Amino acid sequence: MDGRLDDEVVRVGGDARQRYYDASGYGRPLEGNEIELAPVEAAHLLFRGDLDAVDGMGFREFFAHATDAVDRFGVRYLVYADLRSRGFYLSPSRADWVPAPRRDDDFVVYERGQGPPDGDVAYRVRVVGEREMVSAAAIAAARTDSGDAALAVVDEESEITYLDLGHPDLDGSTSVGLPDGVPAAVLDDRVICWEPPVSLYEQGFFGRPLSGREATEGDPLQLSLVEAAYLAARGAIDLQEGSITVRDRGRAVEGERFDRRLAAYTELRDRGVVPKTGFKFGADFRTYADVESVDSLGHSELLVRVLPADHAFAPRDLALDVRLANGVRKTMVFALVGDDDSAGDGDIEWLSVTRLTP
Amino acid sequence: MDGRLDDEVVRVGGDARQRYYDASGYGRPLEGNEIELAPVEAAHLLFRGDLDAVDGMGFREFFAHATDAVDRFGVRYLVYADLRSRGFYLSPSRADWVPAPRRDDDFVVYERGQGPPDGDVAYRVRVVGEREMVSAAAIAAARTDSGDAALAVVDEESEITYLDLGHPDLDGSTSVGLPDGVPAAVLDDRVICWEPPVSLYEQGFFGRPLSGREATEGDPLQLSLVEAAYLAARGAIDLQEGSITVRDRGRAVEGERFDRRLAAYTELRDRGVVPKTGFKFGADFRTYADVESVDSLGHSELLVRVLPADHAFAPRDLALDVRLANGVRKTMVFALVGDDDSAGDGDIEWLSVTRLTP
Repeated sequence: MDGRLDDEVVRVGGDARQRYYDASGYGRPLEGNEIELAPVEAAHLLFRGDLDAVDGMGFREFFAHATDAVDRFGVRYLVYADLRSRGFYLSPSRADWVPAPRRDDDFVVYERGQGPPDGDVAYRVRVVGEREMVSAAAIAAARTDSGDAALAVVDEESEITYLDLGHPDLDGSTSVGLPDGVPAAVLDDRVICWEPPVSLYEQGFFGRPLSGREATEGDPLQLSLVEAAYLAARGAIDLQEGSITVRDRGRAVEGERFDRRLAAYTELRDRGVVPKTGFKFGADFRTYADVESVDSLGHSELLVRVLPADHAFAPRDLALDVRLANGVRKTMVFALVGDDDSAGDGDIEWLSVTRLTP
Repeated sequence: MDGRLDDEVVRVGGDARQRYYDASGYGRPLEGNEIELAPVEAAHLLFRGDLDAVDGMGFREFFAHATDAVDRFGVRYLVYADLRSRGFYLSPSRADWVPAPRRDDDFVVYERGQGPPDGDVAYRVRVVGEREMVSAAAIAAARTDSGDAALAVVDEESEITYLDLGHPDLDGSTSVGLPDGVPAAVLDDRVICWEPPVSLYEQGFFGRPLSGREATEGDPLQLSLVEAAYLAARGAIDLQEGSITVRDRGRAVEGERFDRRLAAYTELRDRGVVPKTGFKFGADFRTYADVESVDSLGHSELLVRVLPADHAFAPRDLALDVRLANGVRKTMVFALVGDDDSAGDGDIEWLSVTRLTP
């Protein structure tokens, strides 16, 4: 059977509706038995030999034609074919093809065994090539209430990585009674409490004893600048008069990043979650939702990377973070902090990204 | 016992030589029984209570003084104390303190049970704070023939990550007979061979069948731009006349990075090692040293990130790469490619970085 191009959609007549749409979920029905196929659908049918030609073009010629004529045809075809090979029916997310299509989605993927027009949606997929930058705001906006938003990244060798875009669970149960005005000193890019109350470390999990592995009770406690800035803002520590403020020191060594990190740190603490450095995982923080004592710490649940709200991801960096988090059984979370947020005036956008195997 | 400051070194008399140097490897002997201590050593003895005061200063006062007066005192003290707590003796890497000190090293760490003046060296350690950028060239230069070079990174919470700096094993046994002039076409940012010889994928592990998981013999083969540029330079594939060259397309989509990646790819292939995309690991390549057939692929051994020779690492990025590689049982390798190298005229510097637990 042959199709014909009509403004970069392929129309097929004859028994096309029964053969392609009803039986296999390809295309969109028009009048009578005619259907129209998106270019990726037509290419897939040509490749399978289920369609003979489009305007006289076989698979190769049509593929080359569509690569030139249709935006991101190559990567979209690869994802379409991959999801088909995994047993899914899927439709291009176009007006009049699926209910309530969204602008940046490429495909609506139906639950296994279901298809258009009224199948349940398993995933709403956006496709990108590994060389395209993806704005963090766009990823955050792509999330749905039903949690079915996914990003499909096609790498240079045409392998596909699927990522699930979601809302992280940031509720913790840690409750810490802060002390009042504990003397502390800024020393270079750290802060030291020479005589800390035991609870600050033991229950609050603030800082690290100066003697580290050999710590004994009453040891001096080192605080990171972000921990110290949080505690100083609450009056829990008292820095020597005349010394530079912790926040100024933080800005001096990290610039605006310090304000963003402090905003994320503060919101996590306010939610009962304890953030500690994520350095060993290449992140800003790892987090513990339920700390009662440092002697009975559980596994940390999240890795948090703090980014400016206008950040754009290189997909490779995203793949790196998500892969690492998966390997250490944590969830990768991005805190997108706007200019207002870092002054403490706005909401931080929290975005989780996890591996997805369709 | 008390010490006195003399140009930011601490001199101690009495029985100091026997007590600190001979018994515990602190300091450097002067005339008679006098020794001199580096500030980190004096601070450590003060903290332990083995030294009473330096110019009247106890631990706290001396620590604060040294933080102001001595370059990177805080992070160096933390590493010194950590290695001591792990049971090592170590000496500041200073002229006249250790044999053949090197400029950028901070400490010479002796094998367990050994110490100055003639203990065997376990590690030569350079200390950095997590906020300091570290030039890739400096890391490459720090490596020794005996493989004992290490980087100690102190994070914002004063936890320490030790990294071993080495020379990776890049010898492979893969031998591929390349075809001659196989027709291929550039399609967007990939290349397709419509009728590839089976050996190109099956033995050479070039490309990926267009139909991916459902591939059958004779399927079209997609090549990445870097694979195609390598094959085109050897006459193995023949791109349609008049089409843009693969290398130009690569530069158009990746800039100079494409040339660097092609240089690294080429050297690996020339050494019998097969590079494939490392995208899922956030790297440029993963590599297989001994490919006989794609049906019997072993575990890939290396993750390669290609960087310009003048790259400077944020220690956090380094920690991320090394942690991920460790988690997937691969070795992280950086290919440092200079401007001459990417034209194929020079040597690429290959640097391995692995986790170290002293």
